[in-house]
Amino acid sequence: MNERIRWIRNNLKSQNIQGMIISNPTNIKYLTNIDAEGILLLTLRENIYITDERYIEKVKKILTIDDEIIVTSFRDLSYEDYENYFLFCENVGFEENYVTYSNYKEIMHKYKINNLVETEWIVEKQRQIKDQDEISYIRKACEITDNCFSHLLKYIKKGMTEKQISDEIEKFFKENGASGVSFPSIVASGENSAIPHATPTDRKIQSGDVITIDMGCVYNGYCSDMTRTIFVDFVQEYMKKVYDLVLKNQMIVTSEMREGANIKTLSKIVEGNFKMNDYDLVHALGHGVGLEVHEGPIISEKNEKTLKAGMVVTNEPGIYLPGEYGVRIEDTILIGENDSEVLTKSSKNYCILS
Amino acid sequence: MNERIRWIRNNLKSQNIQGMIISNPTNIKYLTNIDAEGILLLTLRENIYITDERYIEKVKKILTIDDEIIVTSFRDLSYEDYENYFLFCENVGFEENYVTYSNYKEIMHKYKINNLVETEWIVEKQRQIKDQDEISYIRKACEITDNCFSHLLKYIKKGMTEKQISDEIEKFFKENGASGVSFPSIVASGENSAIPHATPTDRKIQSGDVITIDMGCVYNGYCSDMTRTIFVDFVQEYMKKVYDLVLKNQMIVTSEMREGANIKTLSKIVEGNFKMNDYDLVHALGHGVGLEVHEGPIISEKNEKTLKAGMVVTNEPGIYLPGEYGVRIEDTILIGENDSEVLTKSSKNYCILS
Repeated sequence: MNERIRWIRNNLKSQNIQGMIISNPTNIKYLTNIDAEGILLLTLRENIYITDERYIEKVKKILTIDDEIIVTSFRDLSYEDYENYFLFCENVGFEENYVTYSNYKEIMHKYKINNLVETEWIVEKQRQIKDQDEISYIRKACEITDNCFSHLLKYIKKGMTEKQISDEIEKFFKENGASGVSFPSIVASGENSAIPHATPTDRKIQSGDVITIDMGCVYNGYCSDMTRTIFVDFVQEYMKKVYDLVLKNQMIVTSEMREGANIKTLSKIVEGNFKMNDYDLVHALGHGVGLEVHEGPIISEKNEKTLKAGMVVTNEPGIYLPGEYGVRIEDTILIGENDSEVLTKSSKNYCILS
Repeated sequence: MNERIRWIRNNLKSQNIQGMIISNPTNIKYLTNIDAEGILLLTLRENIYITDERYIEKVKKILTIDDEIIVTSFRDLSYEDYENYFLFCENVGFEENYVTYSNYKEIMHKYKINNLVETEWIVEKQRQIKDQDEISYIRKACEITDNCFSHLLKYIKKGMTEKQISDEIEKFFKENGASGVSFPSIVASGENSAIPHATPTDRKIQSGDVITIDMGCVYNGYCSDMTRTIFVDFVQEYMKKVYDLVLKNQMIVTSEMREGANIKTLSKIVEGNFKMNDYDLVHALGHGVGLEVHEGPIISEKNEKTLKAGMVVTNEPGIYLPGEYGVRIEDTILIGENDSEVLTKSSKNYCILS
């Protein structure tokens, strides 16, 4: 049987859960490689993927006999079929963080399940620890992102708009092996850089600008995420101070990232250092990266867990002065047993375009 | 007050619902024009948008005094604030089709609401009827899509891959006023055209191919959606028969689309005509188009409702012969009181590239 499904099944068994309904398409893609609309049922006897006629052909092309997944169409199922799937299961799991309240009620009604139980991110937690294949895809996505940044340093000229630069990022990714961006790129110049989640505008790049570029691409389904803050023509001394503070903290965190590191503490370090200089850490310090550009674990003071080897996370402190400017520096980082590896390798020295 | 929020408030009042928690970002965008991460609360006294620090700046730029929406940060709220929001409300509505089971439990816990009631797509139903501004944006998105199709007829050459064509579509949209594609374009050639939801591959266009192109763009937040099936060098007679059957049914449906038309009947007409020729209608006949490329109403035999003036929907019958080829023809259509207007105007005559 498909290894990832086997792992989930063992995990469920240890919690006295005999079956599971998996609806989140990203979780289904992770477990089966299927990229369609449908649901995956892990029943006592079988793994079943149910989809509609539009996808049957496509899904059959993706699966191999080793997956041990039966494919069927919604159209071919009777009320009785649904009721029989989990007939002898005491507990059946569902994705309480993905399934809507309406779907929940529908599932209860349709499958006649005795006990529909929450699985607390069971698949998402498994997804947090990347295997060698997944790491190689993320590594490649980061490499393409670095190449894009090098390209941008030559490409960006005064008078260009933020939108133009953002379009160039997308174009570069597509022409260099990525399937596209992992999220809409942020190119925020001048006072726009003070908006952490800015949308590219028609503002033109000009002398003295700070430019925050936050971008990532998707390679073979896996994401990268990197931010660099660069300058045009010159850097004001007061900006240097903010830049240095952000960079210093970003590097401290990276040096502390390894198996066992307390996530809350990592966030507290930055928060404390920022506070001492009268700045706030206004967003989470980072997040997991994988099939989704934002996935678990969240790197913030709210997370009481520790890092584990094989996690891939971002480290992205930022300081924002509304109406003036902002600085954010972000890398995608692979957690190891004794240290961490920065997968996005673009320089973080002052970068001054002219 | 913002007109759309006033409409929702009146609708809620008529159902004896005194407040509502709106979490779906598309619904929030529709009601407020805010494009961020947060929630909108309609309480007895106020409209409140709660977001995090990252978005405060951006949101304040979007709202005007006429919106009558208070903006606040999650960080500034106490447990008591949440409990006070709906203190004197008998019933508070939520989006049961958007809110996850986990969120539902969290809402119950956090706001201490007496009676959290389902609102049955209240905002989505309002969104189905487009106003003049919305129609003008969709019209423009359709016009750009038509222009893209004209461009493709000159651009596509034998030896090009499906992916190349799909990239060209995206490039064209961006260079011609759209903010991007409304969904990943489908360019399915030869036997791939038998897969209704095909993903573009490296397959090269060759003589005798059928090519299904399903694409749409986003203009000012609003979507278009169009499919054309074209031929390379020649059309086999047996393909013509299938093409004619699909086209005839597509045109019959369009001619029947108007205020009051029974949606189920529209679908049944096509299903019946296909069956008589030994084909199945394997997917829904269409769907609403607006801020989302797939929104209500679904045009299928499962929908017992009627069409209403101001709805914008697709009409997209298709026939698929697994392993061989497929034909789908789709327009985006504006429903009027006495007839309908086809907004995507590209020709549906046999189109044979050479």
